Amino acid sequence: MTSMAAGQHRVAEVSFGARLGAAMQSHGRLCVGLDPHPQILSDWGLTQDAAGLREFCARVLAACTERVGVIKPQVAFFERFGVAGLQVLSEVQAQARESGLLVIADAKRGDVGSTMAGYAEAWLNPAGDFAADALTVSPYLGFGSLQPALDAAQEHRAGLFVLALTSNPEGREVQLATDPQGVTVAGRVATAAAAANVSAAAAANVSAATATATQDHPVDAAEDLGSIGLVVGATTAELAGAHGIDLSTGSMPLLAPGYGAQGASAEDLRRGFGACYSRQVLVNSSRGILAAGPRMESLTSAIDQALEDLS
Amino acid sequence: MTSMAAGQHRVAEVSFGARLGAAMQSHGRLCVGLDPHPQILSDWGLTQDAAGLREFCARVLAACTERVGVIKPQVAFFERFGVAGLQVLSEVQAQARESGLLVIADAKRGDVGSTMAGYAEAWLNPAGDFAADALTVSPYLGFGSLQPALDAAQEHRAGLFVLALTSNPEGREVQLATDPQGVTVAGRVATAAAAANVSAAAAANVSAATATATQDHPVDAAEDLGSIGLVVGATTAELAGAHGIDLSTGSMPLLAPGYGAQGASAEDLRRGFGACYSRQVLVNSSRGILAAGPRMESLTSAIDQALEDLS
Repeated sequence: MTSMAAGQHRVAEVSFGARLGAAMQSHGRLCVGLDPHPQILSDWGLTQDAAGLREFCARVLAACTERVGVIKPQVAFFERFGVAGLQVLSEVQAQARESGLLVIADAKRGDVGSTMAGYAEAWLNPAGDFAADALTVSPYLGFGSLQPALDAAQEHRAGLFVLALTSNPEGREVQLATDPQGVTVAGRVATAAAAANVSAAAAANVSAATATATQDHPVDAAEDLGSIGLVVGATTAELAGAHGIDLSTGSMPLLAPGYGAQGASAEDLRRGFGACYSRQVLVNSSRGILAAGPRMESLTSAIDQALEDLS
Repeated sequence: MTSMAAGQHRVAEVSFGARLGAAMQSHGRLCVGLDPHPQILSDWGLTQDAAGLREFCARVLAACTERVGVIKPQVAFFERFGVAGLQVLSEVQAQARESGLLVIADAKRGDVGSTMAGYAEAWLNPAGDFAADALTVSPYLGFGSLQPALDAAQEHRAGLFVLALTSNPEGREVQLATDPQGVTVAGRVATAAAAANVSAAAAANVSAATATATQDHPVDAAEDLGSIGLVVGATTAELAGAHGIDLSTGSMPLLAPGYGAQGASAEDLRRGFGACYSRQVLVNSSRGILAAGPRMESLTSAIDQALEDLS
């Protein structure tokens, strides 16, 4: 890819979906949640400040590097420590990406217009302090309000995970509410995300066809995972089927929190996601892994066990 | 109030609702949006970086101080510039509060459990870098998921504005979706926010009664605005009535974006909010005011005009 601009903060050479698919093929479907909540810092004997955060993240990153493909920092636990906490997040995300990990910033941002564009630039522009491979976003303002983030994801070859059917029970009053045609809110989100992937794949196939003609490498983008995914709880995937929510169209990556310490077994995940499980599902584990720390061997052993369990 | 702990970062002496009510009585119902979007920085001849942000905010704050009661920084436009941008936000919020302005951080955060608590601590704890008087929050994960933020608001005498019926049309597919009883998502949010205020007022009245008995100052909290408000678009307030959404219960402050440059006139607001307008509605104006800058006299004159228009 000699046509890419060189530089420290260059745009990735392939789509987020393609990078995620490759990471899942190499390392499995486990995403490790980087959740430095007050209790875990205390359990690990770390201070409740930016120095404690930094040490916590260094240990988790060391355990993850070359063992898993994806990490998911929980932004709130950095923001809690103000500017210094976000400085740590910035360093940790950069270090993780340099080590070959994909980073999903779990920030659940959501707004409209130029404000949504501001968040998307903050988290998806590779030149920014908070550059991540993908960002979680919230569609309370309607899926259409996320368009500036979809545009930014396309431009920066980054990804989005849109909150759809989350694992907390109180989410259902919003996510399973219906329009006059009986379609659920989560169902509309799923349909719109799938459509975004289908149209991105179509556009990429046109470029790939052109690239082939010029002897560049022909990637069949239709085979890749899409770059626009959903957050669907490990414990709520079964609800999708029951409510006519289609998770299988559009090659959407499905980020599933709620595994392990938070309630769902690998068997629950396989049953809940059905045919989507093998190709689309990235399973997040935070507390189940982190509770094994701070000893490095215990962390890596918890990771290996989860990888095996989910394979 | 000799019982308050002294210190730079002390908790306010009265509830956010009481502070907001007093600010609206002294200064009127205008909230000035601090929205340093790319176009306005460029229009004002400022650089697209933290220095540009800082200069922009200094001018807007100078125009607002002692003229309006409330400002609303749009967090995305600071986050866009990474750690340095958030450092500016931290300084601006502190300076605004020292000047007697109430600060509503428009961050639209929303998550569950300890993660939601992390965001609430980040924005509502008076000792934090991002200490604000109130925070906007998103209920896509269900109103119940906001409980840690309600608890933090109570503890820190801060406020929340929960997204309910926003002014962007694509929000309706979520906000006007209904449960099996035909209640809309926005309606459930309104009912839950009102209930939170009613129970906080009841608790405060018990304390006030106790305080009276001990010769401390007897505040009738039931007369105050509540501290848990809603975001209801200036252009969508009329929809509330049409969909049976009750905005009048629970003394909820109603933050209304969408005035002026964004579409609604003062007359639209009065008609849309009806009887709620005079006591509950805080009207945000961002672009309508900011477009008058960067000259100080033009900014203050635009503010005076909006105050008059909305009175």
